[in-house]
Amino acid sequence: MPSKPPGLASRRGAMLGTGLLATTLPAAAQTPNTAAPAPLQVASIGSFHVGGGVRTLTGLPAREVRMTATGPLRRIEVNGDYMVGQMYVQYVKLAAPKARHPLMLWHGGGLSGACWEDTPDGRPGWQSFFLRAGHDVYVSDAFERGRASWPRFPEILPDEPVFRSLSEAWRTFRFGPPNGFDLDPAKRRPYPGARFPVAALENLGRGAIPRWASSDAFVQSAYGAYLARMTEPSVIVVHSQGVAFALRAALDAPGKVAAVVAVEGSGAPDPATVDMARMRNIPLLMVWGDYLDQAPWPAYRGAVDRFAAALTAAGGSAELMELPARGIAGNTHMLMHDDNSDQVAGLIQGWLAAKGLMKA
Amino acid sequence: MPSKPPGLASRRGAMLGTGLLATTLPAAAQTPNTAAPAPLQVASIGSFHVGGGVRTLTGLPAREVRMTATGPLRRIEVNGDYMVGQMYVQYVKLAAPKARHPLMLWHGGGLSGACWEDTPDGRPGWQSFFLRAGHDVYVSDAFERGRASWPRFPEILPDEPVFRSLSEAWRTFRFGPPNGFDLDPAKRRPYPGARFPVAALENLGRGAIPRWASSDAFVQSAYGAYLARMTEPSVIVVHSQGVAFALRAALDAPGKVAAVVAVEGSGAPDPATVDMARMRNIPLLMVWGDYLDQAPWPAYRGAVDRFAAALTAAGGSAELMELPARGIAGNTHMLMHDDNSDQVAGLIQGWLAAKGLMKA
Repeated sequence: MPSKPPGLASRRGAMLGTGLLATTLPAAAQTPNTAAPAPLQVASIGSFHVGGGVRTLTGLPAREVRMTATGPLRRIEVNGDYMVGQMYVQYVKLAAPKARHPLMLWHGGGLSGACWEDTPDGRPGWQSFFLRAGHDVYVSDAFERGRASWPRFPEILPDEPVFRSLSEAWRTFRFGPPNGFDLDPAKRRPYPGARFPVAALENLGRGAIPRWASSDAFVQSAYGAYLARMTEPSVIVVHSQGVAFALRAALDAPGKVAAVVAVEGSGAPDPATVDMARMRNIPLLMVWGDYLDQAPWPAYRGAVDRFAAALTAAGGSAELMELPARGIAGNTHMLMHDDNSDQVAGLIQGWLAAKGLMKA
Repeated sequence: MPSKPPGLASRRGAMLGTGLLATTLPAAAQTPNTAAPAPLQVASIGSFHVGGGVRTLTGLPAREVRMTATGPLRRIEVNGDYMVGQMYVQYVKLAAPKARHPLMLWHGGGLSGACWEDTPDGRPGWQSFFLRAGHDVYVSDAFERGRASWPRFPEILPDEPVFRSLSEAWRTFRFGPPNGFDLDPAKRRPYPGARFPVAALENLGRGAIPRWASSDAFVQSAYGAYLARMTEPSVIVVHSQGVAFALRAALDAPGKVAAVVAVEGSGAPDPATVDMARMRNIPLLMVWGDYLDQAPWPAYRGAVDRFAAALTAAGGSAELMELPARGIAGNTHMLMHDDNSDQVAGLIQGWLAAKGLMKA
């Protein structure tokens, strides 16, 4: 069994009386929301899997598995037909959406669509924000993440997956200097003013999903199938690793994309390899937080900037939203989890409205 | 890339115009729902991870990984601190629930909580049914499934996972005789009258999730943490592999469980190893479909029946709902996906109401 880490408690755990985090959570997280917002008028909620196809395994030996600790060995056939390459999509449709199009939330690397739901410290996430702003919201798990499932390796994916540790998340997501990480929440030293709720880092780690370096073609194909299935264009709000997939998907199926909001993109298609004019009518917004001088972010951002420059040169629209330049300091890579997550979502919502994507 | 299987198309794909399945889907799936039901009044929607703790890996060599097909080799540190053992829970809370308690949907083996959302042929699932019946609904992914994530093996889980092929699902879920399975949907021969939408078998396969035989203690612990986090008792509607976990969790924390609806349980705790009196005040309903003479179901059901007999002997309440005995023939192991899924949910809802679990 896993050992309980020092000082580990979820925010809800604290609310239930353990109180371990009461002194370290940001004030906003400790204040009960006494003024409940008006109910959402939901027409339907549901999900589907989309993309992929059958892969047949042959020639592999059967396994002998004890399905319970004290049970008998059971022969497990490994050969057979498996669905491979699909992704998972959950939708919440409103009775009277104010937005012209569905809004899709595409996650980044090492996470699932759950990153758009409640924040690690238990506040409503961007799924809730954009529902309340009047969008039908679609939250997905990319191929080999979360409810999309994942296939055998090395038979189908050639390599083994990559797991992200708490300290790697701390560094890569720009919560603080590498030596500022500690297993004890009380000893964590984030960047001054950093807005991620670092006392709830464990809850971010609970949502960390293994990822494969070899899966890009499957992931891209499934996103294409997802857009093809939609009957109308969608607004794509996309994070980190997802940005390169979203821009490629928009170039592949521009009629299915109404706008792309690239939040902290970690890459983009090489403009030399694509027909940038295909995205000419799809407005692009790039949103960036703080501390972007930390590796590997200058290189990551460079790829997105090159894409944006080429899009502009091709007659398209690419706009930059650098939060520090607007006087908003301290945002990390996990903008949707930072303590001003609703403020950032509000800026995005304002841009969508300005682009004419809300009903009059 | 995955090859496209013969005749593969999702129902929504068919609705978008490919039409491949139009002749094989049940009539209900082809009829657009023109009379939209009244909107759900949703107070909040969100999610959390719960349970588990830090596991630290040491002494493992770093890996060299090409994170993109054409990118440079990157050194990936494997050692570090990881969250292990957690599960994932998504909730939809109503503005004015008619039920006295939250209703939890716990999935079975080889699936995630997505099995409670839309059916493989695209009808609303039990999540929607019980929301519309007035319950706050919590849908979870057990440890190592779906959005709960999974840890390294063999370092943390000792064995490799088990994958379920389409033909194994066909057999084990009692859709038809083993030789009735075919990759071509038009050639599938289910049991006469079987109610699973076999033309959409691929969509069930898309939602299939690898499982470990060695994870029971982690899974049970996380379910315990989940119940501990709730501030009130919940009704647990649980399927297949989940039934043994739910009964054990109810014995461990009877104050947090208002009732258990065991749908097609594949096992139960050995009555000789537990204090059955702890469940004396928790009503238990056991729901079974058809074709139960097929292996391994007589053995699986035997364990559930022994548990129920012991519970009754200890002064508790265990009721049997055998659908064929009520004149409802053809239900498979996947009752929540069968073409009469709402009818079965309605019978469960009636039982909950009869037990006083709805507000007057």
